[in-house]
Amino acid sequence: MQRTIRLIIEYDGTNYVGWQIQHNGIAVQQRIQDALRKMTGEEVVLIGASRTDAGVHALGQVASFRTTSLIPLLGFVRGLTGMLPCDIVIKAAEEVDADFHAQRSACGKIYRYLIWNNTQPTALDRWRMWHVARPLDVAAMRKAARTFVGKHNFRSFMGPRTAVKSTTRRIKRLTIVSKNHDGGRTMTITFEGDGFLRSQIRNMVGTLVEVGEGKRAVADIKKILAAKDRRAAGFCAPAHGLYLVRVIY
Amino acid sequence: MQRTIRLIIEYDGTNYVGWQIQHNGIAVQQRIQDALRKMTGEEVVLIGASRTDAGVHALGQVASFRTTSLIPLLGFVRGLTGMLPCDIVIKAAEEVDADFHAQRSACGKIYRYLIWNNTQPTALDRWRMWHVARPLDVAAMRKAARTFVGKHNFRSFMGPRTAVKSTTRRIKRLTIVSKNHDGGRTMTITFEGDGFLRSQIRNMVGTLVEVGEGKRAVADIKKILAAKDRRAAGFCAPAHGLYLVRVIY
Repeated sequence: MQRTIRLIIEYDGTNYVGWQIQHNGIAVQQRIQDALRKMTGEEVVLIGASRTDAGVHALGQVASFRTTSLIPLLGFVRGLTGMLPCDIVIKAAEEVDADFHAQRSACGKIYRYLIWNNTQPTALDRWRMWHVARPLDVAAMRKAARTFVGKHNFRSFMGPRTAVKSTTRRIKRLTIVSKNHDGGRTMTITFEGDGFLRSQIRNMVGTLVEVGEGKRAVADIKKILAAKDRRAAGFCAPAHGLYLVRVIY
Repeated sequence: MQRTIRLIIEYDGTNYVGWQIQHNGIAVQQRIQDALRKMTGEEVVLIGASRTDAGVHALGQVASFRTTSLIPLLGFVRGLTGMLPCDIVIKAAEEVDADFHAQRSACGKIYRYLIWNNTQPTALDRWRMWHVARPLDVAAMRKAARTFVGKHNFRSFMGPRTAVKSTTRRIKRLTIVSKNHDGGRTMTITFEGDGFLRSQIRNMVGTLVEVGEGKRAVADIKKILAAKDRRAAGFCAPAHGLYLVRVIY
């Protein structure tokens, strides 16, 4: 009998070309799929909820596969983690309905972006936060962020080489929390939406930082959205500050 | 005219043999001293407040040196950080009295130890926290921790190959904060004292974890202190969970 299994996965994206299997290096999907094939002896195909880019991290990536193997769920959690390099950890495994599909069944996603805002960089979190040296006006960034909330055509924030039917997405929540410590501050930007276009969050973060630096006005966000042109928006923030936190079903 | 300069340094200890220059690899002291010599053209000697072991991190290591160079303080902060690898950051530089000595002038130190307590390990913090899989009894650990506070002979917690005049130290504060998240919990153990023996904190943490796992009784701590013998105490906790937070002058 065939079982459909869903995995919750944490990974440090630093050493990978991203989630999705590619020609130019090792992908997270590849590593887990290889381990699953060894474990089950089957040609398992692993489907991930989100195609995180190279360098992007995950606290709660979700991936599903089908198998006839009788390995218990805890065997997948512990066994896979033991076979995988230490920058990938299986946090949980559960059996789901046969029609479950990690990508198509998802109804929402939560991402987090971390910024270290201080003149000096951070040594310990250098692959965990984007270092922005210039002082940021958080109040202006929060105002700009509010413009993104709701249903909009995010074409201006879509990365290159993407084929999608629609560039309209709904952002349910976009919050910016700023916390002073060690002479600087950490800014945590949380995004919740029904889905995101390729590089959308990084392009939005880059644009918000330009607002925070005073290079763009809060009112510009509306114009950028209306332009429906990538060139209207700001800088693409680096991958290492981005985390896929949770996939909602 | 000679100036005495004090640096505040953050580093990721993962790729170093520790603070102190050694034969078997690259030390943090070496890296900064080399950069200082290039910058000033002088045979600068850098004195650190704490000899952190291989793999131990620092958020606020303090080191001092003398120079006749006229480079402004901000020049040391930015210039050195630019010359150093990205796992070492100079957070601040200030001019101090000629008799200042980073090690001998210190009157206290604050260290932090991080534990990830969950059946599954953490991918993102694998070099930042010690993974303890068995459930820990925090209440018992807190009780045991209280026994350490005050002035005691910590000989039983001293690492090997150390020559010190006295093994008596005073611990001013020892707190354990537990925070649940992502299905597990992070335990932050903070130590403040006038000074610590070699490996003392790691040996104390290892022993506290044995209390938390139920392998030792809270009352054993007194007996271990009284034994004045390393073999009486517990396991030495791994280096990668330990941070030198601040040096007090």
